[in-house]
Amino acid sequence: MSESYTLHEDPISANCYKIRLTAALVGVPLTRIAYDIRKGETRTPEFLAQVNANGRIPVLEITGAQGTRFLPESNAACWYLASGTGLIPADRFAQADMLRWMFFEQYNHEPNVATLRFWLGYIGEANLSEAQKGQLAAKRAGGDAALRLMDEHLSTHDWFVGGGITLADITLYAYTHKCEDGGFVLADYPAVQRWLDRVAGVAGYAPMD
Amino acid sequence: MSESYTLHEDPISANCYKIRLTAALVGVPLTRIAYDIRKGETRTPEFLAQVNANGRIPVLEITGAQGTRFLPESNAACWYLASGTGLIPADRFAQADMLRWMFFEQYNHEPNVATLRFWLGYIGEANLSEAQKGQLAAKRAGGDAALRLMDEHLSTHDWFVGGGITLADITLYAYTHKCEDGGFVLADYPAVQRWLDRVAGVAGYAPMD
Repeated sequence: MSESYTLHEDPISANCYKIRLTAALVGVPLTRIAYDIRKGETRTPEFLAQVNANGRIPVLEITGAQGTRFLPESNAACWYLASGTGLIPADRFAQADMLRWMFFEQYNHEPNVATLRFWLGYIGEANLSEAQKGQLAAKRAGGDAALRLMDEHLSTHDWFVGGGITLADITLYAYTHKCEDGGFVLADYPAVQRWLDRVAGVAGYAPMD
Repeated sequence: MSESYTLHEDPISANCYKIRLTAALVGVPLTRIAYDIRKGETRTPEFLAQVNANGRIPVLEITGAQGTRFLPESNAACWYLASGTGLIPADRFAQADMLRWMFFEQYNHEPNVATLRFWLGYIGEANLSEAQKGQLAAKRAGGDAALRLMDEHLSTHDWFVGGGITLADITLYAYTHKCEDGGFVLADYPAVQRWLDRVAGVAGYAPMD
Protein backbone atom coordinates (compact mmCIF):
# COMPACT_ATOMS: atom_id res chain seq x y z
CA MET A 1 0.00 0.00 0.00
CA SER A 2 1.44 3.33 -0.99
CA GLU A 3 1.25 6.24 1.39
CA SER A 4 -0.65 9.48 1.04
CA TYR A 5 0.28 12.77 2.66
CA THR A 6 -1.69 15.69 4.02
CA LEU A 7 0.08 18.86 5.10
CA HIS A 8 -1.56 20.83 7.91
CA GLU A 9 -0.19 24.30 7.29
CA ASP A 10 -0.53 28.04 7.14
CA PRO A 11 0.33 29.17 3.61
CA ILE A 12 2.19 32.24 4.95
CA SER A 13 4.62 30.03 6.92
CA ALA A 14 7.91 29.22 5.23
CA ASN A 15 8.29 26.33 7.67
CA CYS A 16 5.34 24.82 5.79
CA TYR A 17 6.81 25.77 2.42
CA LYS A 18 9.95 23.73 3.22
CA ILE A 19 7.82 20.61 3.22
CA ARG A 20 6.05 21.55 -0.02
CA LEU A 21 9.41 22.20 -1.69
CA THR A 22 10.80 18.86 -0.47
CA ALA A 23 7.69 17.06 -1.72
CA ALA A 24 7.97 18.80 -5.10
CA LEU A 25 11.64 17.85 -5.46
CA VAL A 26 10.99 14.18 -4.65
CA GLY A 27 7.81 14.10 -6.75
CA VAL A 28 5.30 13.31 -4.00
CA PRO A 29 1.80 14.86 -4.05
CA LEU A 30 0.52 16.61 -0.90
CA THR A 31 -3.03 17.44 0.10
CA ARG A 32 -3.03 20.82 1.86
CA ILE A 33 -5.24 21.90 4.79
CA ALA A 34 -4.88 25.56 5.72
CA TYR A 35 -5.11 27.13 9.18
CA ASP A 36 -4.72 30.82 10.02
CA ILE A 37 -2.21 31.08 12.87
CA ARG A 38 -3.15 34.74 13.33
CA LYS A 39 -6.68 33.61 14.27
CA GLY A 40 -5.46 30.90 16.66
CA GLU A 41 -6.74 28.09 14.46
CA THR A 42 -3.91 25.76 15.60
CA ARG A 43 -4.81 26.24 19.28
CA THR A 44 -8.35 24.86 19.17
CA PRO A 45 -9.18 21.80 21.30
CA GLU A 46 -9.73 19.77 18.13
CA PHE A 47 -6.34 20.68 16.67
CA LEU A 48 -4.53 20.01 19.95
CA ALA A 49 -6.24 16.64 20.38
CA GLN A 50 -6.05 15.36 16.82
CA VAL A 51 -3.15 17.01 14.99
CA ASN A 52 -0.50 18.40 17.36
CA ALA A 53 -0.59 18.82 21.12
CA ASN A 54 2.11 21.48 20.67
CA GLY A 55 -0.42 23.72 18.87
CA ARG A 56 1.85 24.39 15.92
CA ILE A 57 1.97 23.92 12.21
CA PRO A 58 3.31 22.39 10.04
CA VAL A 59 2.28 18.83 10.73
CA LEU A 60 2.63 16.11 8.12
CA GLU A 61 -0.18 13.55 8.23
CA ILE A 62 0.92 10.21 6.81
CA THR A 63 -1.64 7.56 5.86
CA GLY A 64 -0.51 4.09 4.85
CA ALA A 65 -0.22 0.51 5.98
CA GLN A 66 0.41 1.64 9.57
CA GLY A 67 -2.78 3.70 9.66
CA THR A 68 -2.67 7.48 10.04
CA ARG A 69 0.24 9.11 11.86
CA PHE A 70 1.08 12.74 12.52
CA LEU A 71 4.59 14.19 12.32
CA PRO A 72 5.19 17.71 13.67
CA GLU A 73 8.34 19.81 13.19
CA SER A 74 9.08 21.06 9.70
CA ASN A 75 12.58 19.66 9.43
CA ALA A 76 11.49 16.21 10.64
CA ALA A 77 8.73 16.18 8.01
CA CYS A 78 11.28 17.06 5.32
CA TRP A 79 13.48 14.22 6.57
CA TYR A 80 10.58 11.76 6.32
CA LEU A 81 9.65 12.75 2.77
CA ALA A 82 13.28 12.74 1.60
CA SER A 83 14.22 9.39 3.19
CA GLY A 84 16.01 7.23 0.67
CA THR A 85 16.49 10.04 -1.86
CA GLY A 86 19.55 12.03 -2.85
CA LEU A 87 18.31 14.96 -0.74
CA ILE A 88 19.84 13.12 2.26
CA PRO A 89 23.47 12.14 1.70
CA ALA A 90 24.34 8.55 2.55
CA ASP A 91 27.87 9.39 3.76
CA ARG A 92 28.00 9.36 7.56
CA PHE A 93 29.77 12.69 8.03
CA ALA A 94 27.82 14.46 5.28
CA GLN A 95 24.54 13.29 6.80
CA ALA A 96 25.48 14.61 10.25
CA ASP A 97 26.81 17.82 8.69
CA MET A 98 23.49 18.31 6.91
CA LEU A 99 21.66 17.88 10.21
CA ARG A 100 24.11 20.39 11.73
CA TRP A 101 22.83 23.06 9.32
CA MET A 102 19.22 22.03 9.94
CA PHE A 103 19.65 22.42 13.71
CA PHE A 104 21.41 25.76 13.08
CA GLU A 105 18.39 26.76 11.02
CA GLN A 106 15.97 26.06 13.85
CA TYR A 107 18.16 27.52 16.61
CA ASN A 108 20.01 30.51 15.11
CA HIS A 109 18.12 31.40 11.94
CA GLU A 110 14.40 30.79 12.23
CA PRO A 111 13.83 32.40 15.66
CA ASN A 112 15.37 35.61 14.30
CA VAL A 113 14.76 35.74 10.54
CA ALA A 114 11.30 34.16 10.58
CA THR A 115 10.14 35.96 13.71
CA LEU A 116 11.07 39.39 12.37
CA ARG A 117 9.30 38.57 9.10
CA PHE A 118 6.15 37.67 11.03
CA TRP A 119 6.35 40.60 13.45
CA LEU A 120 7.26 43.30 10.92
CA GLY A 121 5.71 41.87 7.75
CA TYR A 122 2.44 40.47 9.12
CA ILE A 123 1.66 41.87 12.60
CA GLY A 124 3.20 45.30 12.01
CA GLU A 125 5.72 47.06 14.26
CA ALA A 126 3.09 49.40 15.72
CA ASN A 127 1.07 46.41 16.95
CA LEU A 128 3.92 44.63 18.75
CA SER A 129 3.90 44.23 22.52
CA GLU A 130 6.51 46.03 24.60
CA ALA A 131 8.22 42.69 25.23
CA GLN A 132 8.40 42.06 21.48
CA LYS A 133 9.72 45.55 20.79
CA GLY A 134 12.40 44.95 23.41
CA GLN A 135 13.63 41.93 21.41
CA LEU A 136 13.82 43.61 18.00
CA ALA A 137 17.49 44.65 18.25
CA ALA A 138 18.65 41.22 19.47
CA LYS A 139 16.68 39.44 16.76
CA ARG A 140 18.07 41.77 14.10
CA ALA A 141 21.63 41.08 15.30
CA GLY A 142 20.98 37.33 15.58
CA GLY A 143 19.46 37.14 12.11
CA ASP A 144 22.30 39.11 10.55
CA ALA A 145 24.82 36.85 12.30
CA ALA A 146 23.08 33.78 10.86
CA LEU A 147 23.00 35.24 7.35
CA ARG A 148 26.67 36.26 7.65
CA LEU A 149 27.67 32.75 8.67
CA MET A 150 25.76 31.36 5.68
CA ASP A 151 27.40 33.92 3.40
CA GLU A 152 30.88 32.97 4.59
CA HIS A 153 30.19 29.29 3.99
CA LEU A 154 28.60 29.89 0.58
CA SER A 155 31.47 32.12 -0.56
CA THR A 156 33.52 28.90 -0.94
CA HIS A 157 30.79 26.28 -1.42
CA ASP A 158 27.96 26.02 -3.95
CA TRP A 159 25.80 24.04 -1.50
CA PHE A 160 25.79 23.64 2.27
CA VAL A 161 26.90 20.00 2.13
CA GLY A 162 28.60 18.19 -0.74
CA GLY A 163 28.10 18.81 -4.44
CA GLY A 164 24.35 19.22 -4.76
CA ILE A 165 21.16 20.26 -3.07
CA THR A 166 20.25 18.57 0.23
CA LEU A 167 17.72 19.22 2.97
CA ALA A 168 20.19 21.71 4.47
CA ASP A 169 19.67 23.95 1.44
CA ILE A 170 15.91 23.46 1.33
CA THR A 171 15.33 24.21 5.00
CA LEU A 172 17.63 27.27 5.04
CA TYR A 173 16.22 28.53 1.74
CA ALA A 174 12.67 28.82 3.06
CA TYR A 175 13.01 31.85 5.34
CA THR A 176 16.18 33.21 3.73
CA HIS A 177 14.46 33.90 0.42
CA LYS A 178 11.77 35.84 2.29
CA CYS A 179 14.12 37.59 4.73
CA GLU A 180 13.55 41.04 3.25
CA ASP A 181 9.95 40.84 4.54
CA GLY A 182 11.59 41.15 7.98
CA GLY A 183 13.88 44.03 7.05
CA PHE A 184 17.05 42.08 6.24
CA VAL A 185 18.96 43.18 3.14
CA LEU A 186 19.96 40.39 0.78
CA ALA A 187 22.39 42.65 -1.07
CA ASP A 188 24.54 42.50 2.10
CA TYR A 189 25.01 38.78 1.46
CA PRO A 190 26.08 38.27 -2.17
CA ALA A 191 27.04 34.59 -1.82
CA VAL A 192 23.63 33.92 -0.28
CA GLN A 193 21.98 35.69 -3.22
CA ARG A 194 23.80 33.51 -5.75
CA TRP A 195 22.86 30.40 -3.77
CA LEU A 196 19.18 31.45 -3.69
CA ASP A 197 19.27 31.56 -7.50
CA ARG A 198 20.98 28.17 -7.56
CA VAL A 199 18.21 26.62 -5.43
CA ALA A 200 15.48 28.20 -7.56
CA GLY A 201 17.12 26.69 -10.64
CA VAL A 202 16.96 23.07 -9.47
CA ALA A 203 14.78 20.75 -11.57
CA GLY A 204 11.38 20.35 -9.90
CA TYR A 205 11.66 23.58 -7.86
CA ALA A 206 8.30 24.95 -6.70
CA PRO A 207 7.94 28.59 -5.64
CA MET A 208 6.35 29.52 -2.30
CA ASP A 209 3.45 31.59 -3.55
CA MET B 1 41.95 3.49 10.29
CA SER B 2 39.69 3.95 13.27
CA GLU B 3 38.51 7.40 14.24
CA SER B 4 39.31 9.42 17.33
CA TYR B 5 37.12 12.09 18.83
CA THR B 6 37.78 15.33 20.68
CA LEU B 7 34.94 17.26 22.26
CA HIS B 8 35.35 21.03 22.45
CA GLU B 9 33.08 21.89 25.34
CA ASP B 10 32.21 23.82 28.44
CA PRO B 11 31.65 21.33 31.27
CA ILE B 12 28.71 23.38 32.60
CA SER B 13 26.82 23.02 29.30
CA ALA B 14 24.30 20.21 29.09
CA ASN B 15 24.45 20.53 25.29
CA CYS B 16 28.00 19.20 25.70
CA TYR B 17 26.89 16.54 28.18
CA LYS B 18 24.49 15.12 25.56
CA ILE B 19 27.48 14.17 23.45
CA ARG B 20 29.37 12.66 26.38
CA LEU B 21 26.29 10.60 27.31
CA THR B 22 25.86 9.40 23.72
CA ALA B 23 29.55 8.45 23.54
CA ALA B 24 29.29 6.60 26.84
CA LEU B 25 26.24 4.64 25.69
CA VAL B 26 27.89 3.60 22.42
CA GLY B 27 31.23 2.92 24.13
CA VAL B 28 33.37 5.48 22.31
CA PRO B 29 36.13 7.38 24.16
CA LEU B 30 36.24 11.19 23.91
CA THR B 31 39.12 13.56 24.59
CA ARG B 32 37.73 16.69 26.24
CA ILE B 33 38.98 20.29 25.75
CA ALA B 34 37.30 22.79 28.05
CA TYR B 35 36.43 26.43 27.31
CA ASP B 36 34.75 28.89 29.67
CA ILE B 37 31.85 30.47 27.79
CA ARG B 38 31.46 33.03 30.59
CA LYS B 39 34.97 34.32 29.73
CA GLY B 40 34.30 34.44 25.98
CA GLU B 41 36.76 31.64 25.25
CA THR B 42 34.68 30.42 22.26
CA ARG B 43 34.74 33.88 20.63
CA THR B 44 38.51 34.21 20.20
CA PRO B 45 39.90 34.57 16.65
CA GLU B 46 41.60 31.18 17.00
CA PHE B 47 38.40 29.40 18.01
CA LEU B 48 36.37 31.09 15.26
CA ALA B 49 38.97 30.22 12.61
CA GLN B 50 39.79 26.67 13.66
CA VAL B 51 36.87 25.16 15.56
CA ASN B 52 33.56 26.91 14.82
CA ALA B 53 32.88 30.14 12.94
CA ASN B 54 29.60 30.31 14.88
CA GLY B 55 31.55 30.85 18.14
CA ARG B 56 29.70 28.14 20.02
CA ILE B 57 30.37 24.88 21.78
CA PRO B 58 29.96 21.96 21.63
CA VAL B 59 31.96 20.99 18.56
CA LEU B 60 32.92 17.39 17.89
CA GLU B 61 36.35 17.07 16.26
CA ILE B 62 36.65 13.85 14.26
CA THR B 63 40.05 12.56 13.14
CA GLY B 64 40.27 9.60 10.80
CA ALA B 65 40.96 8.55 7.24
CA GLN B 66 39.42 11.80 5.94
CA GLY B 67 41.72 13.95 8.08
CA THR B 68 40.33 16.17 10.80
CA ARG B 69 36.80 17.52 10.53
CA PHE B 70 34.72 19.65 12.90
CA LEU B 71 31.02 19.10 13.56
CA PRO B 72 29.10 21.84 15.46
CA GLU B 73 25.58 21.51 16.89
CA SER B 74 25.07 19.15 19.80
CA ASN B 75 22.30 17.10 18.26
CA ALA B 76 24.22 16.62 15.00
CA ALA B 77 27.25 15.39 16.96
CA CYS B 78 25.03 12.91 18.82
CA TRP B 79 23.68 11.71 15.47
CA TYR B 80 27.21 11.16 14.15
CA LEU B 81 28.35 9.16 17.16
CA ALA B 82 25.18 7.07 17.24
CA SER B 83 25.11 6.30 13.50
CA GLY B 84 24.55 2.62 12.95
CA THR B 85 23.63 1.92 16.58
CA GLY B 86 20.31 1.18 18.24
CA LEU B 87 20.16 4.76 19.53
CA ILE B 88 18.83 5.70 16.06
CA PRO B 89 15.84 3.58 15.00
CA ALA B 90 16.04 2.11 11.50
CA ASP B 91 12.28 2.38 10.88
CA ARG B 92 11.53 5.34 8.61
CA PHE B 93 8.73 6.87 10.68
CA ALA B 94 10.45 6.23 14.02
CA GLN B 95 13.63 7.89 12.75
CA ALA B 96 11.77 11.00 11.62
CA ASP B 97 9.75 11.01 14.85
CA MET B 98 13.00 10.90 16.84
CA LEU B 99 14.27 13.90 14.88
CA ARG B 100 10.94 15.62 15.56
CA TRP B 101 11.67 15.49 19.31
CA MET B 102 15.28 16.61 18.73
CA PHE B 103 14.10 19.66 16.77
CA PHE B 104 11.51 20.33 19.48
CA GLU B 105 14.36 20.18 22.00
CA GLN B 106 16.36 22.84 20.18
CA TYR B 107 13.39 25.06 19.37
CA ASN B 108 10.94 24.84 22.30
CA HIS B 109 12.95 23.38 25.18
CA GLU B 110 16.59 24.49 25.15
CA PRO B 111 16.00 28.24 24.51
CA ASN B 112 13.77 28.31 27.60
CA VAL B 113 14.94 25.59 30.00
CA ALA B 114 18.67 25.91 29.31
CA THR B 115 18.64 29.70 29.08
CA LEU B 116 16.88 30.12 32.45
CA ARG B 117 19.36 27.67 34.00
CA PHE B 118 22.27 29.75 32.68
CA TRP B 119 20.72 33.11 33.55
CA LEU B 120 19.44 32.22 37.03
CA GLY B 121 21.88 29.48 38.00
CA TYR B 122 25.15 30.88 36.65
CA ILE B 123 24.83 34.61 35.85
CA GLY B 124 22.40 35.43 38.65
CA GLU B 125 19.11 37.30 38.32
CA ALA B 126 20.58 40.53 39.76
CA ASN B 127 23.20 40.58 37.00
CA LEU B 128 20.82 40.18 34.05
CA SER B 129 20.32 42.98 31.52
CA GLU B 130 16.97 44.71 31.30
CA ALA B 131 16.34 42.93 28.00
CA GLN B 132 17.00 39.57 29.68
CA LYS B 133 14.76 40.42 32.63
CA GLY B 134 12.03 41.32 30.14
CA GLN B 135 12.18 37.78 28.73
CA LEU B 136 12.02 35.89 32.04
CA ALA B 137 8.24 35.44 32.09
CA ALA B 138 8.05 34.27 28.48
CA LYS B 139 10.91 31.82 28.97
CA ARG B 140 9.30 30.48 32.15
CA ALA B 141 6.02 29.93 30.29
CA GLY B 142 7.79 28.42 27.28
CA GLY B 143 9.85 26.04 29.41
CA ASP B 144 6.82 24.93 31.40
CA ALA B 145 4.90 24.35 28.15
CA ALA B 146 7.75 22.17 26.85
CA LEU B 147 7.94 20.18 30.08
CA ARG B 148 4.15 19.77 30.12
CA LEU B 149 4.16 18.43 26.55
CA MET B 150 6.89 15.96 27.53
CA ASP B 151 4.93 14.95 30.62
CA GLU B 152 1.78 14.30 28.58
CA HIS B 153 3.70 12.12 26.14
CA LEU B 154 5.56 10.24 28.87
CA SER B 155 2.37 9.57 30.83
CA THR B 156 1.54 6.95 28.16
CA HIS B 157 5.01 6.09 26.81
CA ASP B 158 8.16 4.85 28.57
CA TRP B 159 10.40 6.46 25.92
CA PHE B 160 9.92 9.24 23.40
CA VAL B 161 10.07 6.88 20.41
CA GLY B 162 9.55 3.12 20.36
CA GLY B 163 10.42 0.68 23.09
CA GLY B 164 13.85 1.85 24.23
CA ILE B 165 16.21 4.74 24.61
CA THR B 166 17.04 6.78 21.50
CA LEU B 167 18.73 10.11 20.83
CA ALA B 168 15.37 11.79 21.51
CA ASP B 169 15.65 10.72 25.15
CA ILE B 170 19.34 11.58 25.45
CA THR B 171 19.02 15.05 23.99
CA LEU B 172 15.90 15.92 26.02
CA TYR B 173 17.37 14.42 29.19
CA ALA B 174 20.36 16.75 29.23
CA TYR B 175 18.68 20.02 30.24
CA THR B 176 15.57 18.43 31.73
CA HIS B 177 17.50 16.71 34.51
CA LYS B 178 19.08 20.09 35.40
CA CYS B 179 15.91 22.16 34.98
CA GLU B 180 15.58 22.96 38.68
CA ASP B 181 18.79 25.04 38.35
CA GLY B 182 16.59 27.38 36.29
CA GLY B 183 13.69 27.40 38.74
CA PHE B 184 11.48 24.75 37.15
CA VAL B 185 9.87 22.24 39.53
CA LEU B 186 10.23 18.60 38.53
CA ALA B 187 7.55 17.54 41.01
CA ASP B 188 5.07 19.27 38.67
CA TYR B 189 5.92 16.69 36.01
CA PRO B 190 5.70 13.20 37.54
CA ALA B 191 5.92 11.27 34.26
CA VAL B 192 9.06 13.25 33.40
CA GLN B 193 10.53 12.37 36.80
CA ARG B 194 9.93 8.65 36.25
CA TRP B 195 11.50 8.91 32.77
CA LEU B 196 14.57 10.69 34.18
CA ASP B 197 15.08 7.70 36.49
CA ARG B 198 14.60 5.34 33.55
CA VAL B 199 17.31 7.11 31.52
CA ALA B 200 19.70 7.12 34.48
CA GLY B 201 19.18 3.38 34.84
CA VAL B 202 20.29 2.47 31.30
CA ALA B 203 23.43 0.30 31.04
CA GLY B 204 26.44 2.51 30.31
CA TYR B 205 24.81 5.70 31.63
CA ALA B 206 27.29 8.41 32.61
CA PRO B 207 26.28 11.26 34.93
CA MET B 208 26.91 14.88 33.97
CA ASP B 209 29.17 15.87 36.85
